Amino acid sequence: MSHSNAKFITVEGIEGVGKSTNIQWMAEQLEQKGLSVVLTREPGGTPLGERVRDILLAEFTEKTLPQTELLLLYAARFAHVEQVIKPALAQGKWVICDRFVDATYAYQGAGRGMDFKVIDSLNEWTLGSFRPDHTVILDAPVEIALARIQRNRVLDRFEKEKASFFEKIRQFYLQCAAQNPERYIVIDASKELGQVKQQIAEVICKI
Amino acid sequence: MSHSNAKFITVEGIEGVGKSTNIQWMAEQLEQKGLSVVLTREPGGTPLGERVRDILLAEFTEKTLPQTELLLLYAARFAHVEQVIKPALAQGKWVICDRFVDATYAYQGAGRGMDFKVIDSLNEWTLGSFRPDHTVILDAPVEIALARIQRNRVLDRFEKEKASFFEKIRQFYLQCAAQNPERYIVIDASKELGQVKQQIAEVICKI
Repeated sequence: MSHSNAKFITVEGIEGVGKSTNIQWMAEQLEQKGLSVVLTREPGGTPLGERVRDILLAEFTEKTLPQTELLLLYAARFAHVEQVIKPALAQGKWVICDRFVDATYAYQGAGRGMDFKVIDSLNEWTLGSFRPDHTVILDAPVEIALARIQRNRVLDRFEKEKASFFEKIRQFYLQCAAQNPERYIVIDASKELGQVKQQIAEVICKI
Repeated sequence: MSHSNAKFITVEGIEGVGKSTNIQWMAEQLEQKGLSVVLTREPGGTPLGERVRDILLAEFTEKTLPQTELLLLYAARFAHVEQVIKPALAQGKWVICDRFVDATYAYQGAGRGMDFKVIDSLNEWTLGSFRPDHTVILDAPVEIALARIQRNRVLDRFEKEKASFFEKIRQFYLQCAAQNPERYIVIDASKELGQVKQQIAEVICKI
């Protein structure tokens, strides 16, 4: 049941870098090459996972603790990988996922200061060695990204975080890319949408 | 901020042993002695935890995987302990909780066959050495307990499990009690309600 040539691609980036639009564009590019594509997201991706996502984004009377956040993420992730991602790859479908494990290291690790070893052990237990084949990082300076979301929508619990929180996350992503250029591809998402799409099309060709 | 004389009591048992009614009775007994009592439950106990509970009891198109179940339980438990149980004890209030850690070892460990070491490590990470002072096990043969719930309500995802599942859980609870008579108190819940209440009143006096 190896997934032959089908690839698992994740897309990462802070709020406001245009993940949704560009993931859609990426899927279209792949489909034009005759590939089957499954678009999915984290947290979420299954009916159970989407309900966990609602809890993660909601605001309760009491602050959602980082440990609780982390355990909820992995509860949904395990179902997502076992029930959606692995079965799709096994059927030869390409999977593009809006955020995955890197987001946990970035948001809960670098952002909230959770011990990376705890994340490592949850990963080890739930995913073993399963990882994305490629990870596209949509990168833009925090002030540009935040200005976009503040213009466009009602902010959720994460989107309300301070610029310094997103700065840690952005730097973490860039550091991943610097350490492992085989897996990570950084796209300059501060440019005009047309130019970002052009960069993505080039990446898709290479992959 | 030690919780002086306030105690943390958990009540365990399979479905249909009368936990809700008897916990209420237990709280009344304590209140009659002039104590402040907080009644709570797992999964649940906080607004976030109650939403996690809904997910745990719901049935989705795809089966809820045991690993996901376990992670959801600990996500809610961490919030419950930090935001409800410990603060209540610190204020000198007694806490009675309908199910706690033992239920996880019983249902997810003995019942679903999850590795006890995984539960141990989630416990260690989320609770450290925090444990109930006393655990009351309401015990009844599986056929008696299940006959009660099948008469009285629409069954949730757990209540629909087979008798053999509940038998493993019952035996696990009895084994805990045999190994650690200091913490566990077994009440024969197959008797008439009046007699069960009498047994509980005696336990409360001893505690």
